[in-house]
Amino acid sequence: MAEHKGKCIVVGGGPVGTLTAVFLGRRGFHVDLYEARSDIRSAENVSGRSINLALSVRGLSALKHGGIEERIRSIGIPMHSRYIHTDKGSYTIPYGKKGQYLLSTDRLELNRQLLSVAEKSENVNLYFEHKLVNCDTRIPSATFQKAGSEITKTGDVLIGCDGAYSAVRRQMLKGRMDFSQFYIEHGYKELCIPPTADGEYAMPPNHLHIWPRHEYMLIALPNLDKSFTCTLFMPFSKYEKIVTGNDVIDFFNVNFNDVVPLIGDSLLRTSFFELPPLPLVTVKCSPFHHGKTALLLGDAAHAVVPFYGQGLNAGLEDALIFDGLVDKFGCDFEQIVPKFSEVRVKAAHAIADLSLYNYMEMRSHVATPWFLLRKKVDGFLNFLFPSSFIPRYSMVTFTRIPYDQALKRAKVQDKIVDNGIIIAGGLMLTAIAFAAYKTDWKSFDLSNLTLDRVIEKAKHLW
Amino acid sequence: MAEHKGKCIVVGGGPVGTLTAVFLGRRGFHVDLYEARSDIRSAENVSGRSINLALSVRGLSALKHGGIEERIRSIGIPMHSRYIHTDKGSYTIPYGKKGQYLLSTDRLELNRQLLSVAEKSENVNLYFEHKLVNCDTRIPSATFQKAGSEITKTGDVLIGCDGAYSAVRRQMLKGRMDFSQFYIEHGYKELCIPPTADGEYAMPPNHLHIWPRHEYMLIALPNLDKSFTCTLFMPFSKYEKIVTGNDVIDFFNVNFNDVVPLIGDSLLRTSFFELPPLPLVTVKCSPFHHGKTALLLGDAAHAVVPFYGQGLNAGLEDALIFDGLVDKFGCDFEQIVPKFSEVRVKAAHAIADLSLYNYMEMRSHVATPWFLLRKKVDGFLNFLFPSSFIPRYSMVTFTRIPYDQALKRAKVQDKIVDNGIIIAGGLMLTAIAFAAYKTDWKSFDLSNLTLDRVIEKAKHLW
Repeated sequence: MAEHKGKCIVVGGGPVGTLTAVFLGRRGFHVDLYEARSDIRSAENVSGRSINLALSVRGLSALKHGGIEERIRSIGIPMHSRYIHTDKGSYTIPYGKKGQYLLSTDRLELNRQLLSVAEKSENVNLYFEHKLVNCDTRIPSATFQKAGSEITKTGDVLIGCDGAYSAVRRQMLKGRMDFSQFYIEHGYKELCIPPTADGEYAMPPNHLHIWPRHEYMLIALPNLDKSFTCTLFMPFSKYEKIVTGNDVIDFFNVNFNDVVPLIGDSLLRTSFFELPPLPLVTVKCSPFHHGKTALLLGDAAHAVVPFYGQGLNAGLEDALIFDGLVDKFGCDFEQIVPKFSEVRVKAAHAIADLSLYNYMEMRSHVATPWFLLRKKVDGFLNFLFPSSFIPRYSMVTFTRIPYDQALKRAKVQDKIVDNGIIIAGGLMLTAIAFAAYKTDWKSFDLSNLTLDRVIEKAKHLW
Repeated sequence: MAEHKGKCIVVGGGPVGTLTAVFLGRRGFHVDLYEARSDIRSAENVSGRSINLALSVRGLSALKHGGIEERIRSIGIPMHSRYIHTDKGSYTIPYGKKGQYLLSTDRLELNRQLLSVAEKSENVNLYFEHKLVNCDTRIPSATFQKAGSEITKTGDVLIGCDGAYSAVRRQMLKGRMDFSQFYIEHGYKELCIPPTADGEYAMPPNHLHIWPRHEYMLIALPNLDKSFTCTLFMPFSKYEKIVTGNDVIDFFNVNFNDVVPLIGDSLLRTSFFELPPLPLVTVKCSPFHHGKTALLLGDAAHAVVPFYGQGLNAGLEDALIFDGLVDKFGCDFEQIVPKFSEVRVKAAHAIADLSLYNYMEMRSHVATPWFLLRKKVDGFLNFLFPSSFIPRYSMVTFTRIPYDQALKRAKVQDKIVDNGIIIAGGLMLTAIAFAAYKTDWKSFDLSNLTLDRVIEKAKHLW
């Protein structure tokens, strides 16, 4: 495998760029990977801009292909269910079948491990503190700024894995590329629930904790050090009204009453203001390539809101799919690059839409009995028809069915199940009414009982 | 009016930027206008990137407010109707009522006139060959490159009127702004139909000539020098197949047979390859401002495809609406700037969608009897109810009803008219069938006559 087939320039040393470099290096390409920041393995403070990470089947499949799935599993914490905290109490909703779980993973540690694997690959060179200032997607070439001076590199393919605010993409946008960026009104802020005084988890650890409050939402994922990383999602307009420590405490007392003792009054007062709330963007592009030898992967091609936990999973799956194309087409990047757009654009658009949909679901729906009933019916149908009926969440999270196909199948299933539940409910009510009518008809006024009213009532009740 | 109220930086010396500068100067603001290109009034060759221009009520209202409507009318040519060229012959379809027309105008000449007006304004300074390299929307300030050196200017408001590929917008996009750019598969290419040998127009001049060919479309607008400027719209994939002069002639002979003698064989062969086909982009943003003192106007805020002839009309209307807000709120740009987004974003999104819709309509629908019938019914209803029923095209072109309201009203009207025509047609057919049945029932098989079939048949016939 040592023979060099061609030269690849990878921009961005996050998990997607690094894994892509590992794959290409393993296939005998010479890979130069450029990262704007310094090496996170030696840096002391890394700005915590990332929402903590729930790896699932797509991401884990890619890591397995890279030979480091086991290593990552050993540093992750399985989360088998959602742990819903409501005003009235708490309950859990499993994510899938027995044995299916999300893996709460330290994003930085994952990145560090991948960088170390890449570094060991004889064909991969890592260059840190190289900031992309320009690129020419036709050659392709890329110009980086390093300690004040500029260097230009050319290669056979240029792969932009430089995230949601991709500099490679900014250059590509000058060409004929469809593109949209869309911000939701919510911003996020990370907080920390430390271990208890006796060094234990403050809440059950094998869950993703959710405090759904319709307009706001708080989630918490467990860390290996027995802390939880919390993320608050709230409209920017609301953040602006919280300006003092007392405002924070008041806000939490009203909305997330049970969280205040877990974080601790004084930590909450101070840590809330450490960073400003950060925006959440959805990015769609089409195609993902420009010319025939420049390509975007990961968030650079499709940034999504974090509510399906699929952002990085989709990015790592990109690397896996890309490697599949390299396997199929060999060194012919002029075939591989357009082909990647062909097979991946629709899927990326679908996960963007699914993630926005789940933003509503997590904030509001999970707190309704209707949601619980749906999950139970979904689970039952999946038990009866394991291959033909797979709940939407499971298709996205626990299979590698392309996202767009998952979305399409889910829409059909939704219709069937919703109508089924409503009709079953309606029939049941009618049967009860009929039985009552046979028994003592005078006490029942059936004049207003239409199916529409039954459905309406049923939806309100749930 | 000579007292200086504040300093405005306008980026872009096209018609929108120049008219905005004129308006602001007249209200006593100090205005610095920066244009990247050299002064088009002295330049010999100006690259012809612009589709020729059909001014209508919105643009003309803005020019009137600027005091130069009459001057522009004197250099324009009224186009009262579409002149449709089909394989089988030609016919005209009026744009509106008697006296309503589009004004075919030389875009460069309009720009020249506006620059001269701006130059005479004592509060406006024009700076050419100043290319924006950076701006800070919070101060606001803008840095320009002029002959190798950079200069930075600060002001009270920064207005980006620098077109569909706006450099001001590129800076704003780094903030939290929703944005999309979307390319249609068609590119355009301008050609020229010269005057005839005896110096006359080669076709009737008071029309917008259209050769609708479904996948392709050719249009022609009259110029003062008795030539026509033609624009060909065609998928890029098709352009790629036309590589020699013979290919051009073959293509025109098959598709635009009657145009070949008008342009002339040899001119067509050469001029076709003078410039590559150019892309057509739709740009949507929301909001149009960043911070409280930086704002986009015109194509920078909302580029649309040219099929409704509204691109520049919408841009000039921006300037008019902006001046209305300045009139209302005085020097308070922190109020004016967000207010402009509030009143204008929806309208801009609507004209983008309307323009894409008209792309279908011009290529295909105008060539169908259904379209002709619709126009006649629309005209009749407008005659009966002049203020409550205004055809979509007329609302967009001959009124200043906000585009989004026009779109909403048009959707309701469309439903009424389409259903009305279909029901009337169905009733008529039924009546005929019934009459025939009464006369000689044996010769009629009515067993398959359902309303659905009648409608289906009617739609196919038209």
